[in-house]
Amino acid sequence: MHTLILLRHGESVWNAADRFAGWADVPLSDIGRKEAARCGALLTRAGLLPDVVHTSLLRRAISTADIALEVADRHWIPVQRTWRLNERHYGALQGRSREEVRTRFGDERFMTWRRSHDVAPPPAEQGTIVGRERDARYRHLGVTVPATESLNDVLVRLLPYWESAICADLYAGRTVLVVAHGNVLRALISHLERIPDDALRQVAVPTGEPIRYELTDGLRPTGSRGLPLDSAP
Amino acid sequence: MHTLILLRHGESVWNAADRFAGWADVPLSDIGRKEAARCGALLTRAGLLPDVVHTSLLRRAISTADIALEVADRHWIPVQRTWRLNERHYGALQGRSREEVRTRFGDERFMTWRRSHDVAPPPAEQGTIVGRERDARYRHLGVTVPATESLNDVLVRLLPYWESAICADLYAGRTVLVVAHGNVLRALISHLERIPDDALRQVAVPTGEPIRYELTDGLRPTGSRGLPLDSAP
Repeated sequence: MHTLILLRHGESVWNAADRFAGWADVPLSDIGRKEAARCGALLTRAGLLPDVVHTSLLRRAISTADIALEVADRHWIPVQRTWRLNERHYGALQGRSREEVRTRFGDERFMTWRRSHDVAPPPAEQGTIVGRERDARYRHLGVTVPATESLNDVLVRLLPYWESAICADLYAGRTVLVVAHGNVLRALISHLERIPDDALRQVAVPTGEPIRYELTDGLRPTGSRGLPLDSAP
Repeated sequence: MHTLILLRHGESVWNAADRFAGWADVPLSDIGRKEAARCGALLTRAGLLPDVVHTSLLRRAISTADIALEVADRHWIPVQRTWRLNERHYGALQGRSREEVRTRFGDERFMTWRRSHDVAPPPAEQGTIVGRERDARYRHLGVTVPATESLNDVLVRLLPYWESAICADLYAGRTVLVVAHGNVLRALISHLERIPDDALRQVAVPTGEPIRYELTDGLRPTGSRGLPLDSAP
């Protein structure tokens, strides 16, 4: 049996303002910091002590992990950070509010971009591409850095990391905490639970709610779904 | 040329109360958190962008690194944590105030333990040994975990990590930030600067003040001393 805990970062200031963040590196809101601390308390109460944590390169995930692990007295465990756990790159939508996107592009395209599996929004415009020319943390990636992504693009760049780094920790007997983002966790859950593309729109991952998976030796969930920690007795 | 930045954690709640911490895992004080944020601003102002950070397993160093790097917009760099960067284990002194130690053990022994190179305080009493039976983070070390340490003991357990992990990063061309503790940094500085044992008592490392070293290919300092960042023009 292998234990995996998935955690979407706490509320960011752009979650609060209803703006698309994607690869924009926005901080947690005060509510988000409280959500992160509550996660740490939930982990402690559940007796779930991560041996290693994997995060994205974005501060809302990094801060959530730092705060939760500090509260759970596991601040000292090894950390690995990777762009492959970053949120979906939302291209030209990044920085815009949902309302602005609906008005500018229309409801139908808006819903397609949000819920479809294989349609990416228009790429971010030159000079505004978060994570490309400007950002040292992605420079070594060169042309690999996306300017927009579909949910399937996210899954494709996530899986090599899942298989090489996270599965390796699980097979080594470690309890693994992954602190990441709504869409990258949806992609991972779809992979874990073998959810068909057309059913994935129904999977939503709330901020700041740890989800526990017990996995078989084949890294399949023992239950049909992950278990939210706060539903524990 | 290789760039190394040494940083002692910001003020802890036991620094403020004048108590020996050693391996006791005490948090930063409010002043300590501000010192850490100021370090981040100093790094930014000096244009010193760490590519990798090494910390101890103690939260006062981990929090200092997290806060400073968040302010410097380098929260996403790789982190390595090791017990070999922990503060000197102060044995039976841990948790006691300086005044209590002076009263209980006398001035002479107090000064010997603080300033000598090779004399360790009495070991911590059974059941109070921080980091031995009780603490998951040291369990895998088994009998290696000390119950007290002289400054020389600190150097001996530090050097394998310096040589294998930190030097490897320096030789790979990375700007390296080490966030650790007063005595472990004194030990490292004595090694870098070839300071004789009897002169080491004069080396003090203030909390929250980053010290910059430019090192030759032989990892010797190009100047005679490290340069405090806030003395830069």
